[in-house]
This record gives sequence, C-alpha cells and structure tokens, in this order.
Amino acid sequence: MSPQRGVAPLRRAEIVRATIRCLARDGYSGLTLKKVAREAKVSQGILHYYYTDKRAILVAALETVTADLDHRVAAAQSREGRGARPRLLALVGACLRLAVEERAFWIVFVEFWGEMMHDRRLREINAALYARMRRLIGAVVAQGIRSGAFRRTDVLRAAAVILGLVDGVSLQLAFDPTAFGVAEATRFCGDAVLRYLAREDS
Amino acid sequence: MSPQRGVAPLRRAEIVRATIRCLARDGYSGLTLKKVAREAKVSQGILHYYYTDKRAILVAALETVTADLDHRVAAAQSREGRGARPRLLALVGACLRLAVEERAFWIVFVEFWGEMMHDRRLREINAALYARMRRLIGAVVAQGIRSGAFRRTDVLRAAAVILGLVDGVSLQLAFDPTAFGVAEATRFCGDAVLRYLAREDS
Repeated sequence: MSPQRGVAPLRRAEIVRATIRCLARDGYSGLTLKKVAREAKVSQGILHYYYTDKRAILVAALETVTADLDHRVAAAQSREGRGARPRLLALVGACLRLAVEERAFWIVFVEFWGEMMHDRRLREINAALYARMRRLIGAVVAQGIRSGAFRRTDVLRAAAVILGLVDGVSLQLAFDPTAFGVAEATRFCGDAVLRYLAREDS
Repeated sequence: MSPQRGVAPLRRAEIVRATIRCLARDGYSGLTLKKVAREAKVSQGILHYYYTDKRAILVAALETVTADLDHRVAAAQSREGRGARPRLLALVGACLRLAVEERAFWIVFVEFWGEMMHDRRLREINAALYARMRRLIGAVVAQGIRSGAFRRTDVLRAAAVILGLVDGVSLQLAFDPTAFGVAEATRFCGDAVLRYLAREDS
C-alpha cells in the first residue's frame, strides 16, 4: 500500500474547495486549471494528476456540493421531528438557505446548469442527481400520504413541483436580496407546498 | 440622417441571433467575439462597433429572448380568453414550452444566471427583469382575487412562487426529456398553481 493512499483524498478535497472558490469569483467561463492550482497551492502537474480538465473538476465540485446539501437536509430533518410535514418543510428551508448562506456552493449548481446545456455527459450526471432528489422528496410525500397528512397524488410529479419551486426561488434569492429574504422565502414556499399537498376534504 | 440608420437594427438582430446559436452550441464559456463574427458573417471590426465585449452581447441576447417570451405569453393569453385562471395557465404553459421548443433561447437565460453570479451589473439587469415578471404574474393573480377566482394573498409573493416553479420545472425539462414531457409538465404545474391559489372556502 502506497503512503499516498491517505494523502490523496485530502488533496482532492483541497483542490475541490479551491475550485468552488474560483467558480464563485470568476464563473466557469473564467475558470482555468492554472487559477485552481494557484488557489489550491499545488503545482499544475499535481492538479493534472487528479483532474484532466475543467469539466472533470466541475463534476467533482458538483459531487461535493451535493453531498453537503444532503447533510444539510438530513440535519434539518433530524432537528424538526419525524412527521411528513415538518420533514418536508425542513428540506425546503435547508435548500433555500444554501443559496444565501453558502453562496459559493449554490453557484456550482448554477454554473453546472449552464455547462450541461451543451454537454450530453454533464446532462446525464445532472439527470441522475435530479432523479435521486425527486425520489428523496417523493419518499417524504409518500410518507405524508400514508399518514393522511397529504392528499393522494403521484409522488414523483409532486417531487418535481417541489424541487422546481425550491430551485426557482433559490435562484431569485441568490441574485436579488432586496426582493425578499431567506426567512420569508422559507415561509411562503413552505405555505405553497402545504397548500399544494393539502387534502381536498381538510 | 445617415443611411446606416435603417441597416443598423437589422445587423444588430443578425448578430444577436448568431450569438444565441453560438451560446446554445458552446455555452458562454466557449463564446468568443471571433466565433460570433463568423456565425453572423460580419467582420470582427463591425462586431466590435456594435458590441464591445462578450458581456455586452450576452445582455443583448437576454433582451431578445425576453422580448420573445413576452410575445409568446401575450399570444397564449389572447388565445385562452380573459379569465384569470386561463390567463395564468397560458402563461405557465408558454414559459414551459420555451425550454423545450426554443431550447437555444432558454439556454440564454441559464447562461445569464451563471454569469450574473459574479457580476453585479448583470445581477441588477436580471433583478429588474424578474421584478417586472413578478409584476406581470402578480397582475393576473390580482385579477383572480378581484373576480373571486383566487384566494386573497400577497400578489408579489404568489408571483415569486409561480415564477420559481416555472423556472425550476423548465430547467428539469431542458436537461432531462425522459422524466416528463412538456404537455405533462404544463398539466401538473397548472394544477399546482391552481391548488396554491384556491380559495379556502371552495
């Protein structure tokens, strides 16, 4: 076993963190491997050893911010209790907060959206990520249907609606802090989701 | 008066159309004035006369696709009648169709989102655009409240929800055609909007 084994993951994580800072500052259009190497304080040779091009490093950044969002959602849900309503509201709130409190992380998602539009492989990666997010949200919706908290509905379509709402309102939060704040957005998006899933007989 | 006066707007429009094609193919990160000049069949000197840099031409592309979306929404609304419900559903459907039927136009919005994240001036332009869109959507919501079709609510918050939903679901449509189609998305987003605005006593 090479002594490199323990070092590599740390160095990878450093490079990805440096990439996220560069993306937030210059965007993907201004990203170069040279800038990432300087920001991460590694040689360009080392950087090339881990990532062959900008695209590979963008994918690594997406994986990192996705894992971070997963942790945030899980942490928020564990604080809010076990019911479908509080778990769904915790998920909505955690996603919206990311756009404001971890702006650099949110920018990785937005830059990825732009790049994937003309890159089939990136679209496939994002499609798999979104399919997983719809399943996660759908599982909470299904829990609410079983417990009688929500009306009966197609859970994956409902998840597409909730995910779309959260993405779209996060975007508005991220570029215009004067229209409304994250606390207010959490309130009106939570209200929208609960009205959408309300039982007809309630 | 110079004979250029009549020619300039046409040439500008050609350059913007060429820019939109280039953005759809290569993204903003791959956009160069050289490529746009070649695509528009003008010299780089002529291109520079109209637009000083990539950023200026991206702003011009955003203005063009926004005006196009305005026309689409107005046309769809005039087909669907005068009530608040059909006018709102027409707006939702026209926006979602853009992401699929005019993919290159939709890509301009997404590329703009990425660039504005690290450019204050672009954020201000987008904030003004979104404020206008929320007012447009809000006017239809207000009409529905007055006529009794919708519950009483803050119209600009409701518009932020509807705009967010449409942006987010358009994004899902644009990168993953296998999850659901535009007709289905129009149906489930329309249903979500009407449930969200439904009167509590109905």
